[in-house]
Formats: sequence, C-alpha cells, structure tokens
Amino acid sequence: MALFTEETSESAVNSRMGEDVNPRLATVMASLVKHLHAFAKDVELTQEEWGVAIDFLTRTGQMCDENRQEFILLSDTLGVSMLVDAINHRRPSGATENTVLGPFHVADAPHYPMGQIISLDGKGESCLFEGRVIDRQGSPIENATIDVWCDNADGYYDVQQPDVQPKFNNRGIFTTSSDGTYSFRGIRPVAYPIPDDGPVGQMLAALGRHPNRPAHMHFIVSAPGYERIITHTFVDGDEWLTSDAVFGVKASLISTMEPGEEGDTMWKSSFDFIMVEQD
Amino acid sequence: MALFTEETSESAVNSRMGEDVNPRLATVMASLVKHLHAFAKDVELTQEEWGVAIDFLTRTGQMCDENRQEFILLSDTLGVSMLVDAINHRRPSGATENTVLGPFHVADAPHYPMGQIISLDGKGESCLFEGRVIDRQGSPIENATIDVWCDNADGYYDVQQPDVQPKFNNRGIFTTSSDGTYSFRGIRPVAYPIPDDGPVGQMLAALGRHPNRPAHMHFIVSAPGYERIITHTFVDGDEWLTSDAVFGVKASLISTMEPGEEGDTMWKSSFDFIMVEQD
Ligand SMILES: [Cu+2]
Ligand SMILES: [Fe+3]
Ligand SMILES: [Fe+3]
Repeated sequence: MALFTEETSESAVNSRMGEDVNPRLATVMASLVKHLHAFAKDVELTQEEWGVAIDFLTRTGQMCDENRQEFILLSDTLGVSMLVDAINHRRPSGATENTVLGPFHVADAPHYPMGQIISLDGKGESCLFEGRVIDRQGSPIENATIDVWCDNADGYYDVQQPDVQPKFNNRGIFTTSSDGTYSFRGIRPVAYPIPDDGPVGQMLAALGRHPNRPAHMHFIVSAPGYERIITHTFVDGDEWLTSDAVFGVKASLISTMEPGEEGDTMWKSSFDFIMVEQD
Repeated sequence: MALFTEETSESAVNSRMGEDVNPRLATVMASLVKHLHAFAKDVELTQEEWGVAIDFLTRTGQMCDENRQEFILLSDTLGVSMLVDAINHRRPSGATENTVLGPFHVADAPHYPMGQIISLDGKGESCLFEGRVIDRQGSPIENATIDVWCDNADGYYDVQQPDVQPKFNNRGIFTTSSDGTYSFRGIRPVAYPIPDDGPVGQMLAALGRHPNRPAHMHFIVSAPGYERIITHTFVDGDEWLTSDAVFGVKASLISTMEPGEEGDTMWKSSFDFIMVEQD
C-alpha cells in the first residue's frame, strides 16, 4: 500500500478498504473521501479552519436530544435534505412533487371524516383545504389517506408547545371515497423560523441568512398501488417564498389563498394531488 | 432568487448567502456545499443512507467529552487531518516533514538535561534517541527545543492511564546547545490502536480497516527564526507501517532501530531534524 501524500491522498485512504466490504458502502465512502479531500484542497483549508469545523460538528452533535435534531437542521439548511429528496423522488411531469418531511410529523394523528375542523385552539384565520386525489389520467383515487399538519397562528406546532396547545392541534388524517375528493377546515398557516438558538442558527447568521420558512401545510398522501407523496402546499405571496431556510419550495406546490364561502371559512385553498402508479 | 431544483441545487444554496459575509467564510462554505452536493449526486444517496449518516454524525458528536474527541478521530481516519497538515506544511525537499500532532501531547512536560531517562515505569526495551537539529545548510541550531512523548510498553500514554503510570512517563523537553545535538533515553515505542469503541471504530470495522498505528516517537522541534516541526519518527519494520490508521507515516520519517552501545540502552534511534527558516 502506498503512503499518504498530498497528491495521492484520496487513493491512499480509499485503497485502505478491505476486500469484503459491502460494495455500496465502499462506493459511498470512496466518493465521500474524494469530495471531502477535493474540498480541503480547493480552499486550502487552514489548520485553524479545520479546528473551527471540528468544534462546530461537535457542538452540533451535542445539541441533539429527543426533541432536537441539529444535524438534520444542518442538512436542511445546506440543501442536502432537499437534494436527497429530489434524487429519490423524481416524478414524471404533471405528478405532484415531493418536498421535505420536516421534524414535526407525528405518527398517530386522529382519523376524521371529510370536512372536519382540525384547529383546536381557536386561534388563526379559518381556512378550507380541499381538492382531489387523482391519477395521471385524472381518475379519482379511492381509499387514499391524507395526513395533514401545520403550525398554529403563533407559528408553533402542537408538539413544540405540549403545555400550551391542545394535543393534535392542526393535525388529522382523512380517507377519500370513490370520488377522490378531500376537504378539511383548519387555519391559514403562518411562516415560522426553524430553531436557531444552536450551531445551525449561528451558521445562518454568519452567512447572512434568515431562519424562516414560508407558510405551508404539510401533506402525506398515500394510496395502495401508488407512490407515497410527502409534500407541502405553500401559501402564495408569502414573504419567504423565494428564501425558505430549508429550500423546500417548488413552484408547483404554491397554492393561492382565495376568499372562503360566505358563512364558512375566511380562506379557501384548493390543491389536487396527482399520484404516480408504483412500478 | 431561484427556487431549489436537483439540477441547480448548488447555486440555489450558495446564492442565498448575504452580501456582508466574511469573504473567506463565503469561499469555504460555497466549496463545501459544491462538493457535498456533488457527493450526494454522484452516489445518488438514498434516504435511508442519509438517515444512517445523520445518526452516525450525531453519535460521533455525543461521544465527545474532555477526554475523547471522536470528530478528530473521524477526520484522522478519513485522511483529512493529514491532508490539512500537508496543505499547511509544504516544505522544501530535504527539510524534515510534518505529521499529525495526535491527541496525547501535554503542554507542561518537564525540562530535562540531554541524556536524561524519560521512561519512569521501568517497562519496555530501553532506547537511546539521538541526533542533531540543523538548518538546510547542515549548520547546528542552538536553543532548539525538543518536546518528545510516546506510549509505554503496554501501548498507552500516561494521560490515558493516570492511575497506573507515573505522571510524565515517557515525556520530556530538551534544549540544544551550540553543537545542535540532542539525546535522551526512553523505550522503543510500541504500536497501539486508536480508541475504537465508538462510531469511528464501527466505521473502521465496516470498512475492513484495523485501528492500529505503527510504533512512533512524537516530536515538536522549535527554534527561534525557524518553522516549528510537529512530527513523529516511526520504527522501521513495524507491522503497521504501510497501514497507519491515521495515515501519518511519511517515508522520510522512518528511522532504523539499531542495537544500543554495550552497557547502555538495548536500542538506538538516530534522527536529524532539518529546519526551515521562517519567512
Ligand atoms: Cu467534490
Ligand atoms: Fe413545517
Ligand atoms: Fe502517538
């Protein structure tokens, strides 16, 4: 085996792998080493900068606990989460696009009948969400499950304020019948900042970036035989639409807030989910 | 600002930086994002692999405390520490090369007269270390400080076994006089594994790599007006010489163990340090 030199650093490290290594792991690690070394060489990383990086990564790990995942925030704010999502969810044009799951989904939200009000704290501007779940030919999909969640009017999810908000505030799961339509009544979502009191917040500040996400409603749409869609709809006109701190916005996911029907909700947001058959 | 797409991911993230950002920080972060995204794209990183990476980085951060720096171990075992050292310590040929500092240096080792025995625990095969500190013209350097440390015969540094080894076992600081020569009596160093009971050890195992470092003596050689040398000498013939877990070995740093003088030490290791004038 060859000794390490600046010139041969990548092959010095990668040739060290054993012969029985999982081939996919070998591929991923070899590429990681290649790009990591190319980065250090391109910028001629100084010893002091290397020390700052070690300290930053250490503090990022130590910020994590059951309620906080600072490395996911780091991945989100560097666009890596969205990139991995994009690579793994390429869809034919016309199909509804994915975006990031985010940290605030809960597995056991209540199942409701269509039309149900999901806002339980009496705050915010009421909004009817409605539309259809259809295939690419426009046919309705029956038995599609629509799992939705958003923040309250103060910009917090129920799980962030367990002592303040009612459990399952602004959450619910709905199932389509044969016409494929869905509807539920919640609030017009509001923009909110990602947690920025840790190393990632310090990084954003140093880069002159804000921590805000534009207002959005989260959706997971699933149906037997179709690719699951994890996505948001974004409120058109939001101040942060073109500068989402986690790069989650796609043009096809922006939805106009229209005035609601007289005597019903203040706003109405219509969006159709177009699903792709599984291979 | 443009929305994020798979194709434009790098520019979507990097164009988000503010205008008043420190220019060096902007350069370093833009390059990091470029290479990180290129990595994810090259291997088409899956969502599951991304999750494994998040978990690995989190556990690496959480393994760190006052006595353990798992992110430095990660950097070491991926060759990044040696690469940064190489980039920042390019020396003219003939000058003594640098290698990594390692985690076991202490700042306040005792100052000894030349010839002193630094092994305090009575273990190991005795060895005389000797040579000269010279400039590139071969002239001796006076008042050079030589700070040395190595593991004991069991493969542990004193700081790893504070209750077992005498304080400052196998450590000492020496200062040259006008002839530039140095000498001290320690033990023939032995190979040892880096700490492998954490995430980095798991990574090495998955990659079919061992955690061992070939036997070496650490040196920091400083002299007024000269570039400081942080390096090791490696024992020629060591089993791990071509597979150092942290890639620290350079051919010019390998030193032959010769039999010692009758009635003195068992072994003798001769090595001259050739220093470069500071700019
Ligand atoms: Cu690269
Ligand atoms: Fe959200
Ligand atoms: Fe060492």
